[in-house]
Amino acid sequence: MIDAIQSAFVRLRHNRYFEFFVIAVIIISALEIGAKTYDLNDTALMITKYMDVFITVFFLCEIIIRFIAEDKKKDFFKSGWNVFDTLVVVISLIPINESEMALLARLIRIFRVLRMISIIPELRVLINSLMKALPRLGYVVLLMFIIFYIYAAVGSYLFAEINEDLWEDIAISMLTLFRVMTFEDWTDIQYETMEVYPMSWIYYMTFIFFTAFAFLNMVIGIVVGVMEEEHSKERNIGQPTLLELEQQISSLSKQLQREKFKRKKRRRLP
Amino acid sequence: MIDAIQSAFVRLRHNRYFEFFVIAVIIISALEIGAKTYDLNDTALMITKYMDVFITVFFLCEIIIRFIAEDKKKDFFKSGWNVFDTLVVVISLIPINESEMALLARLIRIFRVLRMISIIPELRVLINSLMKALPRLGYVVLLMFIIFYIYAAVGSYLFAEINEDLWEDIAISMLTLFRVMTFEDWTDIQYETMEVYPMSWIYYMTFIFFTAFAFLNMVIGIVVGVMEEEHSKERNIGQPTLLELEQQISSLSKQLQREKFKRKKRRRLP
Amino acid sequence: MIDAIQSAFVRLRHNRYFEFFVIAVIIISALEIGAKTYDLNDTALMITKYMDVFITVFFLCEIIIRFIAEDKKKDFFKSGWNVFDTLVVVISLIPINESEMALLARLIRIFRVLRMISIIPELRVLINSLMKALPRLGYVVLLMFIIFYIYAAVGSYLFAEINEDLWEDIAISMLTLFRVMTFEDWTDIQYETMEVYPMSWIYYMTFIFFTAFAFLNMVIGIVVGVMEEEHSKERNIGQPTLLELEQQISSLSKQLQREKFKRKKRRRLP
Amino acid sequence: MIDAIQSAFVRLRHNRYFEFFVIAVIIISALEIGAKTYDLNDTALMITKYMDVFITVFFLCEIIIRFIAEDKKKDFFKSGWNVFDTLVVVISLIPINESEMALLARLIRIFRVLRMISIIPELRVLINSLMKALPRLGYVVLLMFIIFYIYAAVGSYLFAEINEDLWEDIAISMLTLFRVMTFEDWTDIQYETMEVYPMSWIYYMTFIFFTAFAFLNMVIGIVVGVMEEEHSKERNIGQPTLLELEQQISSLSKQLQREKFKRKKRRRLP
Repeated sequence: MIDAIQSAFVRLRHNRYFEFFVIAVIIISALEIGAKTYDLNDTALMITKYMDVFITVFFLCEIIIRFIAEDKKKDFFKSGWNVFDTLVVVISLIPINESEMALLARLIRIFRVLRMISIIPELRVLINSLMKALPRLGYVVLLMFIIFYIYAAVGSYLFAEINEDLWEDIAISMLTLFRVMTFEDWTDIQYETMEVYPMSWIYYMTFIFFTAFAFLNMVIGIVVGVMEEEHSKERNIGQPTLLELEQQISSLSKQLQREKFKRKKRRRLP
Repeated sequence: MIDAIQSAFVRLRHNRYFEFFVIAVIIISALEIGAKTYDLNDTALMITKYMDVFITVFFLCEIIIRFIAEDKKKDFFKSGWNVFDTLVVVISLIPINESEMALLARLIRIFRVLRMISIIPELRVLINSLMKALPRLGYVVLLMFIIFYIYAAVGSYLFAEINEDLWEDIAISMLTLFRVMTFEDWTDIQYETMEVYPMSWIYYMTFIFFTAFAFLNMVIGIVVGVMEEEHSKERNIGQPTLLELEQQISSLSKQLQREKFKRKKRRRLP
Repeated sequence: MIDAIQSAFVRLRHNRYFEFFVIAVIIISALEIGAKTYDLNDTALMITKYMDVFITVFFLCEIIIRFIAEDKKKDFFKSGWNVFDTLVVVISLIPINESEMALLARLIRIFRVLRMISIIPELRVLINSLMKALPRLGYVVLLMFIIFYIYAAVGSYLFAEINEDLWEDIAISMLTLFRVMTFEDWTDIQYETMEVYPMSWIYYMTFIFFTAFAFLNMVIGIVVGVMEEEHSKERNIGQPTLLELEQQISSLSKQLQREKFKRKKRRRLP
Repeated sequence: MIDAIQSAFVRLRHNRYFEFFVIAVIIISALEIGAKTYDLNDTALMITKYMDVFITVFFLCEIIIRFIAEDKKKDFFKSGWNVFDTLVVVISLIPINESEMALLARLIRIFRVLRMISIIPELRVLINSLMKALPRLGYVVLLMFIIFYIYAAVGSYLFAEINEDLWEDIAISMLTLFRVMTFEDWTDIQYETMEVYPMSWIYYMTFIFFTAFAFLNMVIGIVVGVMEEEHSKERNIGQPTLLELEQQISSLSKQLQREKFKRKKRRRLP
């Protein structure tokens, strides 16, 4: 009997209409979250409350259906997306006193919108490819962090007395440098320090060049990486390399020479 | 006799001078629209009024000529550009009381400038290629929208009481986040919220990273797409793939082996 | 005897030391121009005056030497760089009363620095390649101009009464839109118009998307163009296309079949 | 006995745990530098003082170990990274009176963090590749400098009397132009000069176009350079060029023709 239920759940899970319904509920939960940011009258607040309960219960059911529909229960949690979905559902089940921690309860519900990504396969592919690109960038990020750290230390030593708000300690200095990197009112900061250290434009100039250069390197790294992937994809499709072509041609050539040699031998033998 | 008129219209339509004249009228209508933004004296205003009538009538005639010159009347509206042209002309025919809805009448006339795009083939090709690139970006745009939506909801919940103008509801928050994405005075917003939530720099930092990363992904997507198009174009020109070359070489090799086998057989037979 | 002078000039022109000396004089003239922007004492002013005369005379001599060293006098002005050099020299010869039009005289002298580009071959190559890239971008620039023009007309009609300084007429509106495109305090402009037209964020949003998209298209156009150039360069070096390889292989195959056919014929004949 | 010490040092140097320990000390020295930017109590200050001594001594020992472990002492200083490490260590040994030149002493210690780059091979590769990209950009940087110089000279001549702070001399003007290039409040500068010279928007517009264009050229230069490197890498791996394939095929064809010719000859001879 359990088997019958499982197979029914499997069928339900792969049903197109069920999938659309799940997406619809996620969109409704997203709209509800958005609606709550407006001033609502009592009726609307009541409706969102009941909808909240419905969405929570529905998501719980959906996760249970997917868990039961899974053949090997262990594999269910091997997929990061399933773990993510379960976490979102479980956390939203924790009873939070709305009057006390209303903010936290609301924030947790927002994460439900992220289920949009886990339910649409194309978005999952996109996120996976972004994740794959990250380690490739690891060392460029490390290099950039070292540049930020050194400049923040220098900035904090030199400029801390000029403007406490911007250069008080190394953490605040790094935030200020991030601002400089986005070119956000960076000249105001520069003119301020240039009054005390007239040569401090060198500090900003070199910092901008280093970060811009590191960033450029990052982009090129990604582009080259993407291209290599394309190349290797082509190879997997069955396109031979030039080297393989060359080997085939030379084997042809050897074939011809072997024959020639045999004929010569035959002519001599008789 | 109708055939004679039609063939005359076909000839007129493909006449180079007629085409140049149409472009000239479009440019004049564009200049007129620009001129109207300046303070004009009565004479000039009079001239623009008469010119308006002339341009409207000319555009109407031109559309009629093109419609009659079309062999199959049904196909005329299959081209999006023809529909666009007809719409622009028809809307500008609606009699609008200048004194009452002067603004609307003026705005409609501006769309005539867009006919520049529909009349110059190179610009049409450009727009078509832009249109083709859009669906490829669909899911990246969706992902970006989800990121915006979640951050806007969080921002509205947390910061609404700090600055109503920037974070009142989810729509205004999304506008504010678009501003942050363009780095426009984003630190002012950040410093304001950091006074209440000192850790809110994490909110801005992660948002900037996510959007920058998604944008980067978008650009790479387009570049890779463009390259694939170039590859497929090359193939259409008649360039064989490496796989086809390999198959030809191996068929050559089989040819040689077959011959060898036949000769052996022949030698044994007699 | 004229021939002797000419050949002497040709030798002088291609002399490495002479070339270095010309570059040195250009650098000195550039430094002099820079020095004049500082407050100079009377001695220094005297020196720059004498240097000005020397540089003018030297450049005149150099142009004359190059002109005489040219075999076919007509070809001299076929090179855009020679025309440019001659123009710079001739204009700086015009006697301008320093006290009256000091500014103009100074500005003309600045153009001498551009001779740096015409004298260093690598920079000439760079400028030439930039020039070649321009026509390829022609239609994208036209499209962008149309977008700017339409948005400027709409902006001028709608917002002229809100802020005269930014939207008075179509020319000023286009300048304002260029500012919006560089994200320079664009939200200030937006907030101002949103007070009258609350939906005017659509105007800015769509404008930013259109220009960003057109710009992206531009960059891709250049990248693809550069790549095609690289491909065609490779071909010119002597690399065959895949199509040529295919034709060679198939001609090999035909050769084999012809032979087979002849042998069959021969065997039947006797 | 010296040999025994050397081989022990060689073993020590290539020991993984020793390497991790060195990295750990560098990270600690970085953290210490960061900690010093905060207000520390006396105990913490004491600790950092002792740590300073320990780190200085440890780095000295590490350099000595690496120097002794080197086979050919001359080659040690041929590596730029070794020279860099030695310099950092030697400079930090100079006894600086903390009370007098505390700032300088601190700044020198910050450079120790750069040892992170010299100790992690991946970061060294990254820096090396950045260094290699620099000369390729040399002429674009020179061109950009010429553009900056000319615009700064013009700006200084025209606008010096409008705003001394921004256009006083050519150096300050170049700094202002760098600000314009980063789009940082550039319209404020523009509106100021447009009050005196209403056409001065041409100055800013052309400058932005030239620098943006030169920058674009730079990026393309790097991308093309990176691609060529990839191509040449592929070749080094052993992939033949299309030209080589063509030559092999044509040699095959000649082989076939030679044989045909021989057979013909043989048949005629007897």
